[in-house]
Order: sequence, then structure tokens, then C-alpha cells
Amino acid sequence: MIGLNGDVGESYGSWSLGKDEQLIPLLDKANIACGFHASDPETMSHTVQLCQHHHVSIGAHPGYDDKVGFGRRSITMSSDAITTSILYQVGALEGICQLHGSRVDYIKPHGAMYHDMMHSASTMQAIFTAAKALNLPVMLFANSHAEKTRQLAKHIGVSVLFEAFADRLYLDNGELAPRSQANAVFHSSEQILQQASHLLQTQTLITASGNKRRVIADTLCVHGDNEASIEVATAIRAIIHRAGQNNGE
Amino acid sequence: MIGLNGDVGESYGSWSLGKDEQLIPLLDKANIACGFHASDPETMSHTVQLCQHHHVSIGAHPGYDDKVGFGRRSITMSSDAITTSILYQVGALEGICQLHGSRVDYIKPHGAMYHDMMHSASTMQAIFTAAKALNLPVMLFANSHAEKTRQLAKHIGVSVLFEAFADRLYLDNGELAPRSQANAVFHSSEQILQQASHLLQTQTLITASGNKRRVIADTLCVHGDNEASIEVATAIRAIIHRAGQNNGE
Amino acid sequence: MIGLNGDVGESYGSWSLGKDEQLIPLLDKANIACGFHASDPETMSHTVQLCQHHHVSIGAHPGYDDKVGFGRRSITMSSDAITTSILYQVGALEGICQLHGSRVDYIKPHGAMYHDMMHSASTMQAIFTAAKALNLPVMLFANSHAEKTRQLAKHIGVSVLFEAFADRLYLDNGELAPRSQANAVFHSSEQILQQASHLLQTQTLITASGNKRRVIADTLCVHGDNEASIEVATAIRAIIHRAGQNNGE
Amino acid sequence: MIGLNGDVGESYGSWSLGKDEQLIPLLDKANIACGFHASDPETMSHTVQLCQHHHVSIGAHPGYDDKVGFGRRSITMSSDAITTSILYQVGALEGICQLHGSRVDYIKPHGAMYHDMMHSASTMQAIFTAAKALNLPVMLFANSHAEKTRQLAKHIGVSVLFEAFADRLYLDNGELAPRSQANAVFHSSEQILQQASHLLQTQTLITASGNKRRVIADTLCVHGDNEASIEVATAIRAIIHRAGQNNGE
Repeated sequence: MIGLNGDVGESYGSWSLGKDEQLIPLLDKANIACGFHASDPETMSHTVQLCQHHHVSIGAHPGYDDKVGFGRRSITMSSDAITTSILYQVGALEGICQLHGSRVDYIKPHGAMYHDMMHSASTMQAIFTAAKALNLPVMLFANSHAEKTRQLAKHIGVSVLFEAFADRLYLDNGELAPRSQANAVFHSSEQILQQASHLLQTQTLITASGNKRRVIADTLCVHGDNEASIEVATAIRAIIHRAGQNNGE
Repeated sequence: MIGLNGDVGESYGSWSLGKDEQLIPLLDKANIACGFHASDPETMSHTVQLCQHHHVSIGAHPGYDDKVGFGRRSITMSSDAITTSILYQVGALEGICQLHGSRVDYIKPHGAMYHDMMHSASTMQAIFTAAKALNLPVMLFANSHAEKTRQLAKHIGVSVLFEAFADRLYLDNGELAPRSQANAVFHSSEQILQQASHLLQTQTLITASGNKRRVIADTLCVHGDNEASIEVATAIRAIIHRAGQNNGE
Repeated sequence: MIGLNGDVGESYGSWSLGKDEQLIPLLDKANIACGFHASDPETMSHTVQLCQHHHVSIGAHPGYDDKVGFGRRSITMSSDAITTSILYQVGALEGICQLHGSRVDYIKPHGAMYHDMMHSASTMQAIFTAAKALNLPVMLFANSHAEKTRQLAKHIGVSVLFEAFADRLYLDNGELAPRSQANAVFHSSEQILQQASHLLQTQTLITASGNKRRVIADTLCVHGDNEASIEVATAIRAIIHRAGQNNGE
Repeated sequence: MIGLNGDVGESYGSWSLGKDEQLIPLLDKANIACGFHASDPETMSHTVQLCQHHHVSIGAHPGYDDKVGFGRRSITMSSDAITTSILYQVGALEGICQLHGSRVDYIKPHGAMYHDMMHSASTMQAIFTAAKALNLPVMLFANSHAEKTRQLAKHIGVSVLFEAFADRLYLDNGELAPRSQANAVFHSSEQILQQASHLLQTQTLITASGNKRRVIADTLCVHGDNEASIEVATAIRAIIHRAGQNNGE
């Protein structure tokens, strides 16, 4: 049964963001911001403690160095700049982890860097180079190129984790519908839970054009920005729990 | 025979600072800036490579998060903020080191943070707490409280390295003369070399009032800002080399 | 009758802070953060628009260049650095104002810079030097040195505005009780409204030791962090409104 | 006779860049960095003083908020974000100018923002919107679309200044040869002076393919990064001086 991952530790100094106390206990893997697009050393330390308390695996969530844009704006960077930026951010989180006897288990790039990675081979390679040096797997989007991506990763010597989205509309080609398209992001709990159910139980979903599509993922991405998203994540966790019981896990 | 340490990797993006290519080969220990008061991931990576090429031990040189002030302005921070800031910066350098199969060997706080550490027990403790978590020694100033500092470090479970300065005037109490005092910083190569010679050969120096004072240090701090300082560092390195030969090392 | 001032525009990128939409209509003067301790150009622009819509006077609220510390940590700066930092921040807000046909009416330093100004003559002078160049008044704390401050300001050629606090306990010497002291910050609405009433109607308040003290202020500082503080500010605004009616204003 | 403009004030804190003391006296218009891609309030103040001393017109040189990339990396920004960023930066410089009884005369976007402005109508419009609010002209590249640009500017209510480059190879279509092309940037003083001469005396230059092309510019961009560029700028200034004498100016 696949697990749940979510972005956490996105507060910054006096500015609070996200319902980490409620979201983290629902997760299997927590993607912790590393101080470039969000967070700061004290927030990171507090977030690591929360994850440890709830036995949630810690992932580094590095992004572009742009707090005002929250890492959602692409910055033109050389491959070396990307590789060393990832090493810097993941290393920083690893340093914080050592205060708590914990460690970083994987890397999931954030926002525009994640998007650029999925659309640029050189960005992906720059990120894999960092992951290889740190001997950590990379979490990325389970699109139709998943097999090709796995081959590139294997060639470089990195392992990968694929994720799927319960709250995003998929196209027939396995890509996400662009946000400009109507219903690209699901806001109805019902719709999100239905897609989560399908993904968890049959590894399929229904695309924008009504076709069934197979999506094999290791983990499902959920959100914890507000009460509604926490309720949805709780319901998805319950589905996983029931499935685990049925399977005698 | 004691060795030499120097601050390196203090460039930032397009801004170049220091003659690292010339200084690093003269050092035993290189204090590499970690991106808060100076440097950036690519500069750090380049500096680590230089150190590795010249077989120089790599130290993390964390500072206050203040590039415009170059870490020379004190910032009022809580103990937790200091500890996690150190962990973040040292971890980041460690992440960069992993790209080059290298590692961080020690921590030397920079500028105002170094000064605050030497004058505030709580700051020192906050830094030692980080060093303990990372299992790394801390380099600090060999003043008259050296023994007390070593006890505190031992109590926390951290080892320490003491450094002395060849280019600074000492007071009778073992502290550095304040920069406001005439001749507080030596600018004559002759004067610097004389104090270096004394420190290296007899573990003594002559204070502002003309008294001889014993200063037991593990390492001597040298600079590489300009041609003159490189010449001085070269001459000090030659003294060490000759002494090593005389001792049959 | 004295008016109300409050800190606004303290959001930053995706991070939201304060109930500006509710607070601004209650204010006479709005202190807008200038991008160093909080805010960014788009947030500043949005905040200026809100103030203009509600006919609220716009003040620049410059602070130390330290977002993670929210300008609440003192940074050791030279006088020139302080003066030019104020000019930079106020000028920046003035630039934003020009998009909306508005202008900056006064300067109120924020957080640690405000505190340092009240406790260091050289910091105050550095800030007055900037205010003089911009031909803008400075808002500061109506403590027992108010007359001396007014003289210094007059000497430099700057006008001043004095403010009082409805939610802070005063000592007999006219200073605020340190935050470490019990009840230093009032949390009961009743207590805040009582002190506001006294200040507005009789220009007096009751100090920590139970004495009556005269505090002559041009403006009263209120907060809008949460629902409770908005309710208090609304009640204070109502007192001013009733007093205005009684005075036939 | 057209004049000279150059980028100045690009130091940052302890990091020094460019030979401003030598370059500024040779310029008619100085483009001063505004603290986003380079510079800080004290550096800006010092640079304004230099310009004033040498009677050089002050231009604001705003850029993307990215010091480590020196504003040379494009950041995806909304139109509002660009407009308010320009207002913020130019306003900040204007604030600094007021300390010295000076003022900002024009705006020239820097680096990637300049490039994006020349290649994106929405970016140009966002910049013009800021310039209109500040009632300042915008300096931009005298390419083949100059007339269209002038119309857009006129429509918005902004005036424009066109610049040409003495040290860049032009294509037949009036665009600069991409930096990847051989000899895209001239390094020989002779070649730079020849193109400067042509531009100044006949408003023409020879393109990459050997054709003569008319380039009508108000100002010529020169550099002051090193001794060689200062020598070239001095020689170009001498050409202008001689031409002025011949014209009885």
C-alpha cells in the first residue's frame, strides 16, 4: 500500500504557514523546507522534532533561493549552481537533524524547481548529481516518462520515488492539466477522495477526457494548508488504514 | 609545531574577495565561509576543491546572517537560534563537501559571532551545543580563560582548538588590545613575523606594556587579503618549515 | 483629541500577518513596513491602496534588515548605515506611493530600531538626520525625556510626534515596565480600554505603583494581530468618536 | 553629440566592484545599482556623492532581487511584481539622493531585467508603468524596434532614451550577436574605439556580416570593470571632446 507525503515546515520567522501539528501525524513522509524558499534554522529544528515524535520519515524539500516568491518563480541557474544549491540545503537540514539524532531520508525539490526538473533533462541531472553525492533517493512526479526517468537515475546511481496527486486533474498523456484549465485543481473533498481511492486501490485514475489511466506511484501527495485539506488528508489516511487491515497488515 | 589557519571562501557571487589560490597552499586549516556572512554554494564548492587539492583541513566558518555587514555586526540572538544557525551552516558545508568526497573537520565562528562567543558564556554554550551534535571541535581564542573554556567544553563533550594571532597586539591579561588602541593591529611585516617567530618557537609574545606573556596555541591565524599578507604568511610558513627540519620532522 | 496609529503591511510574500482590512479603517495613521523586517513591494502597494481607500495617513515603518528576526533583534550599525537605511526604506515606500498618487507623511522606526532610538542618542540623531533630509516628522515614545527629545529634533530641524501605549504598564519614571515584569503587557480588554480612556480624556494613566502620571501624546498605538485586538481598537475608536461628538467636533 | 553612460555603484558591503572613482568622471549618465542585484544604502549614498561631485546625471539601475546571480538570471515575475519592484528600487535611490540634495534623472533596468524588457512586451509595459508613476524616462536598447518602442512609451506617457554599445557585435537586424557567437563581445580596444567612433561620428556601425547599419542612439554604454575598460572609456570621452570642439560646442 502506498503512503502519504506532504510539504511541512514552511513557516518563516514570525510568519506561520500550514497546519503542521495536524498534518504531520497523518503522513508517512514529510517534505521539510530548507531555508531558501521558506523556513529558517529554528523552524527546521522544530519541524524535525515534530516528525521524529510522530515517527514520520524526513525528506529535504529544497527550492529556489527566493522567499518572496516562495520558490514558485523559476530562476535561470547553471547546472553547477543547482547541484550545489541542493547539496547546501539538504546538508543544512541534515545538520539540524543531527541535533535530534535524526536524519534526512530523501529529497523532493519544491515548486518551480520541481516543475523545472520534470521539464528539463539538465535540471533533473543536476539534481540527481546532488542526490548521488548524498546517497539519497529523489521523489518526483509519476508521469508517462517514469520509466525513462528511472533509467537515467539508475545510470547516475540514484534511486527514485514516484508520487501521484489526489487533488489534480490528469491529462490522457499522464501530465497534470495546466492550472489555467477549469477544474485543474480539485476543490471538492469528494472529488479528491475519489481520486485518492482509485489511486490507492486500483492504481488508476480518470483523466480530464474521462479515460481510465494507470498511475503507479510510491506515495500520494496531500496538503495541510487549512482545515478542509486536513480533513481530506485524514480521510485518505483512513482509506489506507482500512486497506491495511483488509490486507491483514 | 603549531600550524596555520586562515579565512577563505569569502567571495560572494560575482564579488571576489581574498587571494585563496595563494593562501590555501600555505595553510594547515582553512576556515570556509558558509553562506550567511559571505559565500554561496558554488563558491563553497570551489573552495572545498582547492583545499582538497592542497591537502588542507576544512573548517566551517559560520557567522551571523548578515552579508552587508560581513558578519562583523553583532545580532541579538537566542541560544536556540545560535545553535540551529551553526548546525544549518556547518551542515550546508558538509553537504557541499560530500560532492568532493571530503568532510568538515572543525568549526570556527566568524567575526562578531566569534567575538560574542569569547565574551558571553551563553553564546559559547550555544555554539558548543551545535558542535557536540556534529561531533566536531571548536576553534577559539587562546586567552587567559583557556583552561576554564576547556573545562566547559569537556563538560559538554566537545573538544577545542586554541588559536593565537601574529598580527595583533596583546594586553598583559592575554586579551587583544582593542582596535581603537594605536598599533592594535600590526601592519609592519617585520613586527608580525617577530611575533609569529616568538609564538612558534617559544610560545610567548611581548605585550603592549613590554612584558613577556606565555600563549599556548594549537594554530596561528594568518590572512590572505592582499599581496602583503600573502608574503607574510609565506614567511611564517617558512619558519614552520625550518623548525620542522631542525626537529627532524 | 489624539488619534490612533497601528503597524500594518507586515505580511511577506505568501506569508500573511495581521488583520489589515479590519485595522486600517480604525486608524488615523498607519505605519507601513518597508521591506527590511517585513513586507515586499507588492504588499506595500496593496497596503498603500487600503490606506488611501480609508483616508488614513501613511507612515513609513523602517526597521533593521532582518526578516527572520522581524526587526526585533538589535544589529550594531554605524550612524551612516542607520541614516542611509532609513532613507532607502522610506524612499522605497514613497516610490510605491507614487503609483497611487499618495505620499509618506511621517516615519516611525520599528521594533529594535525604535527601542535603540529611545535608548541611544546617536541612533536617534542618525534617524533624525534621515528625517530632516526627507522633511518628514518622526513618531516616537512619549517618555519623560520628551521635552529634551523635542529640543534635539528642533535643533536638527525635524518635527516629532509622540505616542502612548494603551496596552503597556508604565513605571513612575514614564518608561514602560520591562516585558519580564508581570502584567507588563495588558491582555485584558478591560484594562486596555481603561488606560486608553484615561489617556484620551485626561492625558494621564496609573503606573505600576498605583500613581497617576501625566502622559501627553499625539497618538495612541493600537494593534490588529487578532480578533481580540481588533475589538479593542474598535472600542477605543468609539471612545474617540463619542469624545469628538461631545466636543462638537 | 551623444554622451556616455555606465553602470556604477555595484559594490556590496565589504565587496568592492568596478573602478567608480575613475569611471564616473568620464560619464554623462551614471546607472546606480539600487540594492536588489548589487549595492546597499551606504554604497548608494557614496556613489550619489561621487556623481554629484563630478556633475554626472544620476540614473536608477534596478534589477531582479538576486545578489548571488548579480541580476543576470531571469526570474519569472508578474507585471505587478515588476512594476512595484521598480518603484521600490528607484524610490529607495531617490530617498538616498535627498540626503545629498540630488535626484534621480532616469531609469535603466539591469542585466536580465533589461534583456527581458527588450524581449517581452508585458515586461516593458510593467517597467513603463513604474516610470510613468515616477515621471522618469527609461533608457533602453536602440534596436530595430526603436520606433515601435517609442510609440508604446508615448502611449503610456513615458519618454525614452536609446543606447548603443561600442563593445558588442551587432547583427544585420540590429540585435546584438548572442554571447555564444565568436567575437560577440569585443575585447580589443582598437575594435571598441572604432565602433565608438563610427557611432559617435556617423551614427552607423559595421555588422557581423560586414554591412553598414544605422543606429541612432542618445547615449553610448561604456564599462569600468578594470584598467583596460577605463582606458577605452577615456579614449571614447576624448573623441566626444574633440568632436565637441570641432562643432564649436
